[in-house]
Amino acid sequence: MHSTTCTVGDYLLLRLKEMGVKHIFGVPGDFNLGFLDQIEAMDHLEWIGNCNELNAAYAADGYARINGIAALVTTFGVGELSAINGIAGSYAEQLPVVKITGSPATNVANSGAYVHHTLGDGDFTHFNKMFKEVTVAQTTLTEENAAEEIDRVLQECWLYKRPVYINLPSDISYKKIEAPKSPLHLPEFTSETGQLNTFLKLALQKINQAKFPVILADYEVNRYQLNEKLKAFVNQSGFPVASLSMGKGVIDETHPQFIGVYTGSLSDPYVRSRIEDADCILSIGVKLTDSLTGGFTHQLDEDKLIEIHPSYAKINQETFDKVSMSDLLELLTEGVEPRDIDTQNIQPFCRRETADEFVPTDKPLTQERFWKQLNSFLNKEDVLLAEQGTAFFGTSQMVLPEKSTFIGQPLWGSIGYTLPSLLGTQIADPNRRNILVIGDGSFQLTAQELSTILKNQLKPIIILINNDGYVVERAIHGPNEKYNDINMWKYSRLPEVLDMGENSISMVAANEKEFADALHLADSQDKLVFIEVTMERLDVPELLDALGKVFAKQNAY
Amino acid sequence: MHSTTCTVGDYLLLRLKEMGVKHIFGVPGDFNLGFLDQIEAMDHLEWIGNCNELNAAYAADGYARINGIAALVTTFGVGELSAINGIAGSYAEQLPVVKITGSPATNVANSGAYVHHTLGDGDFTHFNKMFKEVTVAQTTLTEENAAEEIDRVLQECWLYKRPVYINLPSDISYKKIEAPKSPLHLPEFTSETGQLNTFLKLALQKINQAKFPVILADYEVNRYQLNEKLKAFVNQSGFPVASLSMGKGVIDETHPQFIGVYTGSLSDPYVRSRIEDADCILSIGVKLTDSLTGGFTHQLDEDKLIEIHPSYAKINQETFDKVSMSDLLELLTEGVEPRDIDTQNIQPFCRRETADEFVPTDKPLTQERFWKQLNSFLNKEDVLLAEQGTAFFGTSQMVLPEKSTFIGQPLWGSIGYTLPSLLGTQIADPNRRNILVIGDGSFQLTAQELSTILKNQLKPIIILINNDGYVVERAIHGPNEKYNDINMWKYSRLPEVLDMGENSISMVAANEKEFADALHLADSQDKLVFIEVTMERLDVPELLDALGKVFAKQNAY
Repeated sequence: MHSTTCTVGDYLLLRLKEMGVKHIFGVPGDFNLGFLDQIEAMDHLEWIGNCNELNAAYAADGYARINGIAALVTTFGVGELSAINGIAGSYAEQLPVVKITGSPATNVANSGAYVHHTLGDGDFTHFNKMFKEVTVAQTTLTEENAAEEIDRVLQECWLYKRPVYINLPSDISYKKIEAPKSPLHLPEFTSETGQLNTFLKLALQKINQAKFPVILADYEVNRYQLNEKLKAFVNQSGFPVASLSMGKGVIDETHPQFIGVYTGSLSDPYVRSRIEDADCILSIGVKLTDSLTGGFTHQLDEDKLIEIHPSYAKINQETFDKVSMSDLLELLTEGVEPRDIDTQNIQPFCRRETADEFVPTDKPLTQERFWKQLNSFLNKEDVLLAEQGTAFFGTSQMVLPEKSTFIGQPLWGSIGYTLPSLLGTQIADPNRRNILVIGDGSFQLTAQELSTILKNQLKPIIILINNDGYVVERAIHGPNEKYNDINMWKYSRLPEVLDMGENSISMVAANEKEFADALHLADSQDKLVFIEVTMERLDVPELLDALGKVFAKQNAY
Repeated sequence: MHSTTCTVGDYLLLRLKEMGVKHIFGVPGDFNLGFLDQIEAMDHLEWIGNCNELNAAYAADGYARINGIAALVTTFGVGELSAINGIAGSYAEQLPVVKITGSPATNVANSGAYVHHTLGDGDFTHFNKMFKEVTVAQTTLTEENAAEEIDRVLQECWLYKRPVYINLPSDISYKKIEAPKSPLHLPEFTSETGQLNTFLKLALQKINQAKFPVILADYEVNRYQLNEKLKAFVNQSGFPVASLSMGKGVIDETHPQFIGVYTGSLSDPYVRSRIEDADCILSIGVKLTDSLTGGFTHQLDEDKLIEIHPSYAKINQETFDKVSMSDLLELLTEGVEPRDIDTQNIQPFCRRETADEFVPTDKPLTQERFWKQLNSFLNKEDVLLAEQGTAFFGTSQMVLPEKSTFIGQPLWGSIGYTLPSLLGTQIADPNRRNILVIGDGSFQLTAQELSTILKNQLKPIIILINNDGYVVERAIHGPNEKYNDINMWKYSRLPEVLDMGENSISMVAANEKEFADALHLADSQDKLVFIEVTMERLDVPELLDALGKVFAKQNAY
């Protein structure tokens, strides 16, 4: 039989394409230039050069959130370490990002030579070791192991929805190996039948006996793209459903059974009582972190809790380590005794919180009204990105329209994340309207990536809240301390300076009417729209105000 | 006897002040806000807030190069990982930077809670482990160990001139401990007398018998501030002396014995023959890396080599592990048989390369003439920063005036380093004129730190070479590949957009006369001066052209 060959670089790229990668982010460096040639030469794969590697990692993370998988190329040492915070974020929040490092040639590394981009100690393993802490699998490719190792780490990436690390020495990219014979098997978590049956029986018993059952669903459902299965279960059961803010949008927020976002003691009272007073809480894909629970103020009685995760589940404080969320959602949907929604006495979120009737005044913009005004602008299928600052806490109380996607980073919480992430989300699907809300303090961390968004002629709407500094920190500690001040920029003029084309329009809005006009104008543009809105520095969303106090206490200030 | 107490935070700050820290760089985050209060409250210590943590790390590195020691504060996880590439650079190039991480309170970390800025796995040790790879000592402070541990890691930082990592939980900053009773002992490398005597005898024999001895001095002399001792030995010996480009300026380049910068086979022929044909090469503080030696093309006969490092030395291929550079420089100066310079037939660098007579034309700027023109503008005591791109290779052939300082990063080679580093060097000594030369590709990585330079009303001269992309990469591989392109910015307009004040003046120069006018105007300003110079994208300094080919070969392209 005739066996065809391909280069190691092409093998890797073919596999990435099979998994759904259509764009690769990164920054060139002398150890990866040969591999970049292979990317440029490959059909249906586009290189997106970033301004720096951290931004590239954030962009890849955002891309993975929309596209399901992402890849990122940097050079050795300097490049990969610049990116590592972004990779750590993808690890924490479970995004499958393939991190590829172009490294010195094999003979150079083996010789321990003092080459540039090393620590000058002859040890080429330092950075591999660092990436072990924030990736789920790692490999250094050789001519001999390349096919097997590429397949192995990509499968781990897919299964665990976490980053993996591929060290590709510059001389290995062009080595010829056997081409893939069949498509890469993309593994999924499976259930052990015995465990599945036992768990299912216990769960259905608990669920069907409950008088006030409720569903709490969160981000893991998004990561494993089980939203349709979740929806089927919600529909079939007739139970009320809430999310946490990390998985906001896991179920359509206009769904008649969706009651809102649960945040422990900081929740809306109705949501809090529906969740905490339930006699059966079906927790699906939830991780309880401090920023999602008002600082661990959630009251979820273990005895009432059924916890379902992608690969395991818990009931009556017993763990079943081999049952999958996918199987369970299907079987629970089959087995649940349907209840009529009308008997559940549900107050839908979208009807309690609707902002359709927002009438702009000529008063200055305030946190209290700004989010309602923005809410009335949202459309079906929008992608809404909210920076982990006032923006995240403000948007978490908004009602998302149908089929829209909400993107934030509440666990890792790296400020500056969302602007480069927007590059990734918008590249992943240029046809959806992307709206970013970001504060001035966060914007400054990664501002240059606006240039890459413009270079690629993307057309998101960027709303920059200029409230004069690190307001999320002011809410926690030091409201008027100098260290929470930043330099004031002429933000609205930045888009025209970071690009030579005419791909953007900028506006400034200080009051509600101006903001309404800006949004109206934004809707008619076929350009990137940058809206700088000004707000008072000590005006914060209610939720952030409350959480700030909780965090200050947690830090023992 | 009465013993006074102080807080752990103050203890650390007092020790840093004793070591010479006057400014602390960083970015606030909720886990470090309490410590930032202590910084703000401490006399003679100033907080310099940066736009992001990588930039803060670069600024601290630059500050350490001028000030001798630096400190940097970030928050846990997100902040410290953003900074880690900068810390790795300080490790590689040996700069003493104290990296302080404000981390979650001790009880939170011990409980393994899923708090923000963690990987959400309850493990708070991931980042400590990562920093172990790029710091020379690490500690996590407790109330009990604080005094001892702070002293220990600061001493290691001082001794090895490398970064250290201090993990300061948010609750520990304000714990009361015994105040320092005496100033911190700042350790230095010492010699073992027997080894010292043996080595000295062997060395003096070799040196005094040589017919054509030469000194090759480099960056380790700068790090241990042994420049005066080196100069005394150079003066006393009468030998010709060269440096490598990493330690350029280790001895005044106008010194009559200074012959130029050695770069292996890419050296000026005179320098190469003086070094390689010498019968005794006294190598003082040198590390031979690929970018300094034209890709390991140096020819330094081991039999003729005497190698002196800060804590050890080598002769006749034997290592003496307990002799210090400081002791050896003193004793060699005493023991060397002085030679009359005139008998050494030295062609001084400053007389071969002088650019005083540069006459600007109206021709476009070229790499060939640009560096000569810039050279004629340099003054005594200037600090010249050159980005690791065309700038570094261009400046390495310039003659530095007396008492000037040259700053580059040829071993770690992280592009984008120099702009934030300039913040650090200029803060460290606002009275010296700082001149930065940086390319457009590198500038984009860290461009926002221009804002911090403006906020602090610093007045450096920034020369941005706009040659349309990653020209250092083009020289290695892919001269016209898309991945070496970047988005074109209106660079000269950036300073006015990143600041509200009138702290800057911007100019654009395309030909020699325009550049001469810009430099002339720069001299009369009491503002930050930003000069954008335009050059052809494939015009590279001769040295970079040659090295690019060597690197391409090293990478097996």
